[in-house]
Amino acid sequence: MKFTINRPAFISQLNNVLRAISSKTTIPILTGLKMVVDKERIILTGSNSDITIESVINANNPDYDLTVEDPGAIVLPARFFSEIVKKLPDKQVTIEVTSGFQADITSGTAKFQINGQDAENFPHLPEVETDKTITLPNDVLQEVIRQTVIAVSKQESRPILAGIHITLHDGLLTAVATDSHRLAQRKVALKDVDNGIDFDVIIPGKSMNELSGMISDVDEDVLVQVTENQILFIFGNTHFYSRLLEGNYPETSQLIPDTADTTVELDAGSFLASIERASLLSHESRNDVVKLTLKPSENLVRISSDSPDIGTVEEEVATTALDGNDLEISFNPNYMKDALRSFGQTTVKISFTSPLRPFTLVPTEDGENFVHLITPVRTF
Amino acid sequence: MKFTINRPAFISQLNNVLRAISSKTTIPILTGLKMVVDKERIILTGSNSDITIESVINANNPDYDLTVEDPGAIVLPARFFSEIVKKLPDKQVTIEVTSGFQADITSGTAKFQINGQDAENFPHLPEVETDKTITLPNDVLQEVIRQTVIAVSKQESRPILAGIHITLHDGLLTAVATDSHRLAQRKVALKDVDNGIDFDVIIPGKSMNELSGMISDVDEDVLVQVTENQILFIFGNTHFYSRLLEGNYPETSQLIPDTADTTVELDAGSFLASIERASLLSHESRNDVVKLTLKPSENLVRISSDSPDIGTVEEEVATTALDGNDLEISFNPNYMKDALRSFGQTTVKISFTSPLRPFTLVPTEDGENFVHLITPVRTF
Repeated sequence: MKFTINRPAFISQLNNVLRAISSKTTIPILTGLKMVVDKERIILTGSNSDITIESVINANNPDYDLTVEDPGAIVLPARFFSEIVKKLPDKQVTIEVTSGFQADITSGTAKFQINGQDAENFPHLPEVETDKTITLPNDVLQEVIRQTVIAVSKQESRPILAGIHITLHDGLLTAVATDSHRLAQRKVALKDVDNGIDFDVIIPGKSMNELSGMISDVDEDVLVQVTENQILFIFGNTHFYSRLLEGNYPETSQLIPDTADTTVELDAGSFLASIERASLLSHESRNDVVKLTLKPSENLVRISSDSPDIGTVEEEVATTALDGNDLEISFNPNYMKDALRSFGQTTVKISFTSPLRPFTLVPTEDGENFVHLITPVRTF
Repeated sequence: MKFTINRPAFISQLNNVLRAISSKTTIPILTGLKMVVDKERIILTGSNSDITIESVINANNPDYDLTVEDPGAIVLPARFFSEIVKKLPDKQVTIEVTSGFQADITSGTAKFQINGQDAENFPHLPEVETDKTITLPNDVLQEVIRQTVIAVSKQESRPILAGIHITLHDGLLTAVATDSHRLAQRKVALKDVDNGIDFDVIIPGKSMNELSGMISDVDEDVLVQVTENQILFIFGNTHFYSRLLEGNYPETSQLIPDTADTTVELDAGSFLASIERASLLSHESRNDVVKLTLKPSENLVRISSDSPDIGTVEEEVATTALDGNDLEISFNPNYMKDALRSFGQTTVKISFTSPLRPFTLVPTEDGENFVHLITPVRTF
């Protein structure tokens, strides 16, 4: 195996694949990066137990200035190999495997020789063979991930809640996540989807976070293919595989209340700033709770919190609408912060029923397609 | 006590004083920020066992838009107070102590009430009364600190080596630091210093690092006053006090060899890059050592290292001059990296005597005023 390549362009592809590679793994060869070289291309592969990323460098792409002298394959220690390539002096780097599994890495007057492993020992890629392919606009996929992944459970007690439940039915994509304290649900009506294509999968939240970071770097739309235990996202020259979680996701549709006794509309950004201020104090008290007092009768909304050691905070909140019964309700400010951030700069409508029942946040425009639900905290 | 002030301008002064305040301290009141308010000014004070920083906000400085309604003094929990002020909604903030030691902080519709302490209980400032005042150009002081502080000892076994030894004699300022593995010595001939002013002090390296960060933000020259156990640096509206270390600093002048058997001149920046590459491998081996092979007879300088698990590296180093006997010498690459970084982009001359004797680095131009010494590592 021997090839010479433009170093900065090679580094960008290495960085892609490195996202899948962990230095902590129970399968030692997965700390390695697999390189398969033939006359037409180099395929880089990195994997952990959840995701596998494959990057294809085509010889005919002039950006890479790629010259393959000898085909071949090897697995090299991923972290070292990439650190070395990043620090090399020259614009080009040559990688050569002469005998056994040792690779010579040369650039300018610097020469490294590092120990690799047989590429035959690298786990084989999951096979994704399906004719179920849909295309998702890049920005829509990013938004769906951003708005739901925050509600994914970080607890390991119910592994199924570590995933985002995504279904496609009659062209309507629905994504739901809940950690049992809060829930986020996003719906998108897809255009140009073959009505015969339906699926119902649970994708690990971590995989989706990683995917989101990668697709935000490219402009292209994302092809999605689903099989029984894998989902494959294709964009640019990258194949991103994630395993699916097995099991039944809890039924969530009845959790969202459809009536309200008190409603308020306010600017997400300035309400977020108020919550952040109040949480400076609540974080210092044992139960980390912020209280919201709604008095439609006096057209008043007030947020407050206290910490016996530090002091108290109280702030009047500006609203654009306020209706229904007077109400006092307490909640964890972190849940509210996460929710408000997922809305971005927009007006939200918050609907309450009682101090102990979950309340919902929806954008005041287009309230059908995105709903975030938070369970309050009992303080009495 | 009651005053109203421009919030962003107030924050910049808070940040200054916060540098001296640690949340881990054995004296609880030192987690607090002291504010003393009179009609002419506010004085903010923060302190730990080593340094004390005092910031003066003058009422006649229009940047602060300061209105003092009532004089007074209080100590407030520094971290909270600054986080609160930073997150407040309005351009102005009003701070008022009504009864006892509770402070009301109001800005826009947000109102915090936080518990403070009696300012009388805050330790008194060190008294620095002296007529020994010298002026140091800001950039010179920054460079002296940057070039010597790297050699300050991080070990606690010899507390005196945690300081920089600074002497002024006949207008010549000399700064020396050593951790017994390496040594850095910088000399500066000061202009316009009264010849009667001499001093000999040991300043904690940590204090100097903190000072360096602060003076890099201002343009002004720095006034320095020395007493028996304190040094005071005055710049802008800031007074920076550091305690001095007590004891005798070891005699260091004989440690610097004045003869050499092998010398090489090279570009600090590109040699640093070579060392960084070689250290990728050396860091993985137990004794973290890089080997330099100098062969003036063949006009060759080579750097190499290896790690049994990972592999080997070898690189030819470009030089601008190379003289003397052939030599192989090994050293800790971290010491070399620190030293080369302290030189910046310049040509350095490295002078060796034997594989086990310390070697020196000096700038090829102006080699009299800055010398860095490194002890090699025995590898045989």
